[in-house]
Amino acid sequence: MSGKDVHSIKIGDKASYTRTVTEADVVIFGGVSGDLNPAHFNEEFSKKTLFKGRIAHGMLTASYISTVLGMSLPGPGTIYLSQDLKFKKPVRFGDTITAEVEVIEINVEKNRVTLKTTCFNQKKEVVLTGEALVMPPVKDKLS
Amino acid sequence: MSGKDVHSIKIGDKASYTRTVTEADVVIFGGVSGDLNPAHFNEEFSKKTLFKGRIAHGMLTASYISTVLGMSLPGPGTIYLSQDLKFKKPVRFGDTITAEVEVIEINVEKNRVTLKTTCFNQKKEVVLTGEALVMPPVKDKLS
Amino acid sequence: MSGKDVHSIKIGDKASYTRTVTEADVVIFGGVSGDLNPAHFNEEFSKKTLFKGRIAHGMLTASYISTVLGMSLPGPGTIYLSQDLKFKKPVRFGDTITAEVEVIEINVEKNRVTLKTTCFNQKKEVVLTGEALVMPPVKDKLS
Amino acid sequence: MSGKDVHSIKIGDKASYTRTVTEADVVIFGGVSGDLNPAHFNEEFSKKTLFKGRIAHGMLTASYISTVLGMSLPGPGTIYLSQDLKFKKPVRFGDTITAEVEVIEINVEKNRVTLKTTCFNQKKEVVLTGEALVMPPVKDKLS
Repeated sequence: MSGKDVHSIKIGDKASYTRTVTEADVVIFGGVSGDLNPAHFNEEFSKKTLFKGRIAHGMLTASYISTVLGMSLPGPGTIYLSQDLKFKKPVRFGDTITAEVEVIEINVEKNRVTLKTTCFNQKKEVVLTGEALVMPPVKDKLS
Repeated sequence: MSGKDVHSIKIGDKASYTRTVTEADVVIFGGVSGDLNPAHFNEEFSKKTLFKGRIAHGMLTASYISTVLGMSLPGPGTIYLSQDLKFKKPVRFGDTITAEVEVIEINVEKNRVTLKTTCFNQKKEVVLTGEALVMPPVKDKLS
Repeated sequence: MSGKDVHSIKIGDKASYTRTVTEADVVIFGGVSGDLNPAHFNEEFSKKTLFKGRIAHGMLTASYISTVLGMSLPGPGTIYLSQDLKFKKPVRFGDTITAEVEVIEINVEKNRVTLKTTCFNQKKEVVLTGEALVMPPVKDKLS
Repeated sequence: MSGKDVHSIKIGDKASYTRTVTEADVVIFGGVSGDLNPAHFNEEFSKKTLFKGRIAHGMLTASYISTVLGMSLPGPGTIYLSQDLKFKKPVRFGDTITAEVEVIEINVEKNRVTLKTTCFNQKKEVVLTGEALVMPPVKDKLS
């Protein structure tokens, strides 16, 4: 069940998670985060904003990165150290978002891996960029 | 309904959001993010990890920062540009987390505000640090 | 599928719905209602209140009355006209609440039924009282 | 974090909460309340009713009143004593509902505040009216 340890990871390794963002996702995410911002919950308000309608939470898209890191690369047992996020474009209800991570740096001694993290929509437009730093699982500690 | 514009914000302004993280929150967040990592969902697996039990998603804690930015400071109409996150300590079910934001830089010409973002638990232990960059709402655009 | 029409309802008719209120129910109700009041979501805050801990939303308990009216008595096709609610005692996570409705007045000409609505917990302590006024379904309109 | 005490509240004070009611809200509310009435969950049934389609739960709209009372006016620490509700019009998926409360009576000795509670949709049609009686937080009891 454990993910890849630092010795099994190579520069350029990639993994991704793809999901269609629904109105229901936004309702649920708002409830659990407490972020009931009218940009996500009030159609009348949001119609008058720059984005001309309700959009998804940026942090909902960001959460898909965590999904890839914790479930695929490196996978279970990974410790998440840091993440930076640049929100590039709004995500709308019905958009299908892919969160992709790519290994760009490995520090075997310190057991650290840096990954480029990018989220894009069904039109291949980048909606979020950033970098993650993680500690992959250590093999003799987790079976 | 609109939040504070750049002229109404001062260095040192603060706002916060506090919430007890429950097992239900983690279940729901996992469903909506797709992050079903055993660290959050498998008690048997997680008992054998460094953290000795299931923990909350780091991105769930991070989402509370978005809540403060979008609902309080600057508030509705804010555009989220970037966020960096350093995960410092695990958050456990039952912890009460406060996400606090503090204005540290204001660029009136470009309509940009930088905020220090810190999350701490009921013991005042810092669990997450970082910085956010946002565009506050522009008054004549939103009423 | 349709519920009872006004001719099939008698003074003294009763129906009820019973449910254990969980922490998860409160988390979900808060999200969908927007009521993220610290009385329900912040253990540290709520410990210092009169109730000494988080309690369920009063409107969550009230919603069980609607469940009985719309699903049992009169049942599907009922139009809810009014409800008054007196909140008598807090409901805590783990309490098992019964919402009971009892027909106390019937106006056949106007197709109106008044019901006494009472919610009590597993110790038979009344937590909510009130009255509902409804229009039962009309048989030849719904099959 | 505490709300307004009785001395800080004046006749005519108002607060509101606005939210677009989505199909997801109705699904979630149905699950958590147990109100799976076909008026909300069965399109085929509800097409044949007076309302010609699924509508939102009246108690979902009513819950927004609790949101305003508990989060804004009087705010955190408020004890909800009673509420009466008159359902005036159906709420449909996609409607944007505003719940507004207005202080109409203050009893300083007994620490009681009465508020007129009104919910209306994006067309300013009133969908729910009523009155709430609350005990605002007492300042020296909550910090």
